[in-house]
Amino acid sequence: MNDILKIADKTFSSRLFAGTGKFGDHQLMENALLASETELVTVALKRVEHTGQEEDTLLRHLAHAHIQLLPNTSGVRNATEAVFVAQLAREALETNWLKLEIHPDPKYLMPDPIETLAAAEQLVKLGFVVLPYCHADPVLCKRLEEVGVAAVMPLGAPIGSNKGLAMLDMLRIIIDQANVPVVIDAGIGAPSHAAQAMELGADAVLVNTAMATAGDPVQIAEAFKWAVRAGRQAFLAGLPGEQSVASATSPLTAFLD
Amino acid sequence: MNDILKIADKTFSSRLFAGTGKFGDHQLMENALLASETELVTVALKRVEHTGQEEDTLLRHLAHAHIQLLPNTSGVRNATEAVFVAQLAREALETNWLKLEIHPDPKYLMPDPIETLAAAEQLVKLGFVVLPYCHADPVLCKRLEEVGVAAVMPLGAPIGSNKGLAMLDMLRIIIDQANVPVVIDAGIGAPSHAAQAMELGADAVLVNTAMATAGDPVQIAEAFKWAVRAGRQAFLAGLPGEQSVASATSPLTAFLD
Amino acid sequence: MNDILKIADKTFSSRLFAGTGKFGDHQLMENALLASETELVTVALKRVEHTGQEEDTLLRHLAHAHIQLLPNTSGVRNATEAVFVAQLAREALETNWLKLEIHPDPKYLMPDPIETLAAAEQLVKLGFVVLPYCHADPVLCKRLEEVGVAAVMPLGAPIGSNKGLAMLDMLRIIIDQANVPVVIDAGIGAPSHAAQAMELGADAVLVNTAMATAGDPVQIAEAFKWAVRAGRQAFLAGLPGEQSVASATSPLTAFLD
Amino acid sequence: MNDILKIADKTFSSRLFAGTGKFGDHQLMENALLASETELVTVALKRVEHTGQEEDTLLRHLAHAHIQLLPNTSGVRNATEAVFVAQLAREALETNWLKLEIHPDPKYLMPDPIETLAAAEQLVKLGFVVLPYCHADPVLCKRLEEVGVAAVMPLGAPIGSNKGLAMLDMLRIIIDQANVPVVIDAGIGAPSHAAQAMELGADAVLVNTAMATAGDPVQIAEAFKWAVRAGRQAFLAGLPGEQSVASATSPLTAFLD
Repeated sequence: MNDILKIADKTFSSRLFAGTGKFGDHQLMENALLASETELVTVALKRVEHTGQEEDTLLRHLAHAHIQLLPNTSGVRNATEAVFVAQLAREALETNWLKLEIHPDPKYLMPDPIETLAAAEQLVKLGFVVLPYCHADPVLCKRLEEVGVAAVMPLGAPIGSNKGLAMLDMLRIIIDQANVPVVIDAGIGAPSHAAQAMELGADAVLVNTAMATAGDPVQIAEAFKWAVRAGRQAFLAGLPGEQSVASATSPLTAFLD
Repeated sequence: MNDILKIADKTFSSRLFAGTGKFGDHQLMENALLASETELVTVALKRVEHTGQEEDTLLRHLAHAHIQLLPNTSGVRNATEAVFVAQLAREALETNWLKLEIHPDPKYLMPDPIETLAAAEQLVKLGFVVLPYCHADPVLCKRLEEVGVAAVMPLGAPIGSNKGLAMLDMLRIIIDQANVPVVIDAGIGAPSHAAQAMELGADAVLVNTAMATAGDPVQIAEAFKWAVRAGRQAFLAGLPGEQSVASATSPLTAFLD
Repeated sequence: MNDILKIADKTFSSRLFAGTGKFGDHQLMENALLASETELVTVALKRVEHTGQEEDTLLRHLAHAHIQLLPNTSGVRNATEAVFVAQLAREALETNWLKLEIHPDPKYLMPDPIETLAAAEQLVKLGFVVLPYCHADPVLCKRLEEVGVAAVMPLGAPIGSNKGLAMLDMLRIIIDQANVPVVIDAGIGAPSHAAQAMELGADAVLVNTAMATAGDPVQIAEAFKWAVRAGRQAFLAGLPGEQSVASATSPLTAFLD
Repeated sequence: MNDILKIADKTFSSRLFAGTGKFGDHQLMENALLASETELVTVALKRVEHTGQEEDTLLRHLAHAHIQLLPNTSGVRNATEAVFVAQLAREALETNWLKLEIHPDPKYLMPDPIETLAAAEQLVKLGFVVLPYCHADPVLCKRLEEVGVAAVMPLGAPIGSNKGLAMLDMLRIIIDQANVPVVIDAGIGAPSHAAQAMELGADAVLVNTAMATAGDPVQIAEAFKWAVRAGRQAFLAGLPGEQSVASATSPLTAFLD
């Protein structure tokens, strides 16, 4: 199956994107990312900038030819900060790709729709390839698309909650309307959730907490790889839908008549 | 990973069991079953017995060394009929393995707990390896286990409904209590459902309608193969659970302070 | 609205049945039951028999002309014990009404389908008005009906779990097929769950844990009363169903054209 | 129970708000609204303005002392149109209360977060009491609160879908964070949904489609009245939560030991 995902000018064989937070150590992270076969990995600029030597190590563990880095703006609270951090990230990591995330509230970590749109518009003009993390808001996703983002990254459920596709009804609408790739981000807590997202027609999923905090991150990473492939293939092959009435798979005419 | 499923005296590398009903034609069925890498395939005796030449063809398409046949008693309405049909099946298919299913009602196709237990008890005494299809009833599953069944096959949702694990709360209890393998049967309508069943700790799943009636049964079969593997590996590797409060994967201390 | 529920030879204006366990004290229980306007209250024979003076008090708090007692067989493990206890209950409480419940397992408290059917058959022959508590098993409910029970009491979710209608798909089938009243028992943890059960077409609900363990049992009891009435009336009045596509309630033609 | 809802400078005894669209005729609407005992009723300005005599009739059916009119901006596509229509509504209906709704897309009718916030800010400055209809977006709700809206009206599910609280996880966060009343709008398709919203801690619900398109709108209206009361009282009285393990309501020590 030749099923390539294209975002901006890059192509991806894997539809599983990964995060780098919360892993026990860098080597474990690297092993998990390699097992996942991910080709797009998000990393907080703060982790690169602030802690010097330790973080050089982080980057060294991410230095694989098949892995595209996607710096994120985690920690910023508004559009102004986001644009500033994006520019630092572009210099530091030598990529104009950016995961834009603006969540002012430290408790629930929900993204801010207003600041996100404003920042996206500016960043696109500044030449960034912008992938905004956002609420599962169909109108916001359309507006982000209109200002030129390369993909939208609506959340499946609150970040870190592992609840799966709690926003199912909205994700359906977003996928139905989108003209850019839809990447389900946040909330994906199990391979079954990732498979469901792909069956729904999402273009990719981003997984972090469920992988990093699992008992065995490397094994889970491989499980996610298979699950994403399973869900994608099911979407392409055409799953039958739910039936409200039972339906026999074997003949039911009485045997002994 | 050396993760073998044992039922009675046989071992299985694949935890995906499959049905043979509803496929467009026998060749398509065979292709899908091979793509799924299933090693246990259920077939209604009625389809073998009643229609002579056509069904010889059915069996010929199932004649693969790695595939164990599991004749089922679909169409019977009570324990007496089930025992009779089981004996016919043993002769016709030369196996003492049996999927016991007794659903007297032609509309909803729900299994009869009383007749199923009575038949299971008799069939075990007659030397059968009995795998009963039953409601997701924890007490019934324990009683079936006590009369000596080789595995229990509780339903995930009404058969043919593709609704997935509608009986989730009961399946959890069944898995928690079981001393024989638990195979989730009926209702599994997508690879994500199969993955979820395995993540929950089921020992295997049986899929039929979702595979046979998909747009491309062969591709779906392969998707189910991956999904079952993903869910099983996630179960073994230890998934983190749901969190009620959001939790950041990236540092949230303000960037510009 | 003249909407009377009839079970066996008695009629009920209220479709909210209540349990008597877990209340802080008898007076609180009595106040809650009166606030609920329930007319059918279940009580464990064991509580009446074993503890003499204390339990006389229990009965005294239940002595209201509009309240019918429904002794239950809680604590029995099989049909033989159930029949024995039923007879004790008939003598002690001077009623042939009986809530039959047989749950051999002390952890999950799930009812035993085999023993329940066997006991129900015997008790009907012995002249009891039998209301069996059972799994949400459509075939079992039909078989109980066939041996002459006065109503069936399938569970909504594991007892005491407050999870609501976890067994929704099965309850739909049971209600569709039943020729006796269907009382949803166990799992109803909030007024909204009770309303949903009634909207689905249940004839009544039985509530205990959610009422007895609430912050203010009397207020909750009244809330359940309203919720049951709301759900029943909605069922009778014909609720519209779910829609897969949004639909405007106000005109959407552009305002300023 | 003296439980009064206050929004801006007005108090409400009823926490059930209602819409006026989709009813078969005006008299039926009036009867339903009276049966519901609602005290706040939303009406599209367009219906008042455009069709002269017919709509005078509409207003006449809403002319009850206990009913506060809440004109809405349905049909507008952006903030500029919303502000213009709001001013027309203020003149036409002689109230500065306004339900702000801006949904540019005619298929899914999802509200626009950017335009809604911009319009809310302007309208508050123009002296309106603004109740914005919005996505179940916790950050947007906070920002609306910060510009001075009198309440927020997040959706439970896509409008007209009757799906209930599909946005449950987000509604919880919104209610937890809000300093203004939270009115759940859109998606409420049954009394049980309304009860659930109130149990969750919502301050009120707005119902339209489920009432207007029911088999008997007057009876359903009364059912919603009871359900809202039930849910509110349960919230105040303190419902117990879900339990993951079953818990007996009756003594389980074996009867016959």
